[in-house]
Amino acid sequence: MAFEVKATIATFGGKLLKLSHQSTSTRTPMAVSVYLPPSALQTASPPPLPVLFYLSGLTCTPDNCTEKGFFSAAAAAHGIAVVYPDTSPRGAAIAGEDDSYDFGSGAGFYVDATAAPWRAHYRMETYVARELPGLLFGAAGPIPGLPGVRFDGARAAITGHSMGGHGALTLYLKYPGQWRSVSAFAPVANPAACPWGQKAFAGYFGEDRKDDEWKKHDATELVRAGKAPPELPALIDVGTGDNFYKQGQLLPENLEAAVKEKGVKGVQVRYHADYDHSYYFISTFAQDHVNHAAKYIL
Amino acid sequence: MAFEVKATIATFGGKLLKLSHQSTSTRTPMAVSVYLPPSALQTASPPPLPVLFYLSGLTCTPDNCTEKGFFSAAAAAHGIAVVYPDTSPRGAAIAGEDDSYDFGSGAGFYVDATAAPWRAHYRMETYVARELPGLLFGAAGPIPGLPGVRFDGARAAITGHSMGGHGALTLYLKYPGQWRSVSAFAPVANPAACPWGQKAFAGYFGEDRKDDEWKKHDATELVRAGKAPPELPALIDVGTGDNFYKQGQLLPENLEAAVKEKGVKGVQVRYHADYDHSYYFISTFAQDHVNHAAKYIL
Repeated sequence: MAFEVKATIATFGGKLLKLSHQSTSTRTPMAVSVYLPPSALQTASPPPLPVLFYLSGLTCTPDNCTEKGFFSAAAAAHGIAVVYPDTSPRGAAIAGEDDSYDFGSGAGFYVDATAAPWRAHYRMETYVARELPGLLFGAAGPIPGLPGVRFDGARAAITGHSMGGHGALTLYLKYPGQWRSVSAFAPVANPAACPWGQKAFAGYFGEDRKDDEWKKHDATELVRAGKAPPELPALIDVGTGDNFYKQGQLLPENLEAAVKEKGVKGVQVRYHADYDHSYYFISTFAQDHVNHAAKYIL
Repeated sequence: MAFEVKATIATFGGKLLKLSHQSTSTRTPMAVSVYLPPSALQTASPPPLPVLFYLSGLTCTPDNCTEKGFFSAAAAAHGIAVVYPDTSPRGAAIAGEDDSYDFGSGAGFYVDATAAPWRAHYRMETYVARELPGLLFGAAGPIPGLPGVRFDGARAAITGHSMGGHGALTLYLKYPGQWRSVSAFAPVANPAACPWGQKAFAGYFGEDRKDDEWKKHDATELVRAGKAPPELPALIDVGTGDNFYKQGQLLPENLEAAVKEKGVKGVQVRYHADYDHSYYFISTFAQDHVNHAAKYIL
């Protein structure tokens, strides 16, 4: 069995499963949590579940959002499963990986590193976009102890916060057809142009890859390069009291400008007065993001 | 001004205020958080707010429930303010106060200690039942910067979790008329008969006070002694997967037996299969408890 169940927690009528598995992408054990809505547990053979992936921000494990994000309430109501991957490999034993909050552990940026020594383990793009969906969608009854529970890979959506908002937007754009909708909370929308992204991309790709590899992992640059579909079903929320927004780490205006320049339709960016970068912000709008996904995956 | 505003956080359309003030009861600074619903902020002179007090459990500060409890969602919808007191004085400089998770700091048990050295500072009953309501309800515009915001002391309800469920039940019973309804999550319902309560009461009152002082601070004993009204508007939720329930720390059955024995009406105790003692449990039923209070204070 691919997954080991570390904990099963009753919440909002369903179950939150804390899972662990050995990843072929990162060559480390990976933690991932999955919320199963009540509808998944009421019969022995429930219909395959629509799935919302939530990608967390810097420093987070799956626990931050499952404790503070409040997605389960709306997911339970809609009958949607929520998948919470970790933000990086842990314990890869690379020198310095635990030294920064914004690089290495807890800061995988949802990219496959090409620079040594990170490339041996820091492959979060392949992990989130390929390996994890393969494990969840490919197998019959992937959750130990719940053989009837299946996930419907044709009905998947993706969202995320901050670094995870960057992950959601870029993976949506890079893997057409894999997710039916995308949304983001305070995303790092133009990482090649902000300090967080520049540090991460310099480390994972190298300074010399600014003009090619960096741009392939930047939502604003991907849109500029014509990689967005004509209709992009994206909901993006930003708090105007968010210090990282004020410091220019998020740059949602750059994404908006690119979307406008390319005539891409369907992108809704909302600015909320006074809201900060925390889970107090995320939890407030979590229901809107689950509802957004539900329009496409139910 | 009695309160100092340490932080103002936008959430669920309202504001969460992290306050601090010098307490005359505990003779220490006390932290208390207050959630103001959107209705409190939409006009310069909003109507006085109905208030729900939430008493936290062992080890908690006001932050645990404001981050993980999700009372704000339902409180925003109803236009109810939520007050989150701390669980004890902090920094009272009593030898040993930080040594245990279940006694001293973070474990004030909502009683006024009578035993030395605790009695000089550990006076959480007076703090929660008298001082804090006096500060919130007595003053015109008690919140700095929000002179129009007032709280309606005639429309207050109380709830709490674990040790805080004990606090909510006993303070409701001990101060008739102060709160219009009471509810509890996994309350320590018979502290004189469980290890947590016995340790706390022995420390705060003394072993020799078992037959008098202990019983005055025990919901089950208070009901047995005829201190409950004929109609007790109480909602109590307990998870059957709660290890503390299984270990006999909560003993809701004893409270149920006392209620039955005395013919007290209106007490609803619900047992939820598999739910544990955590905020995953609290957040699931938070809306029900806000709705319960709303029936009495709206």
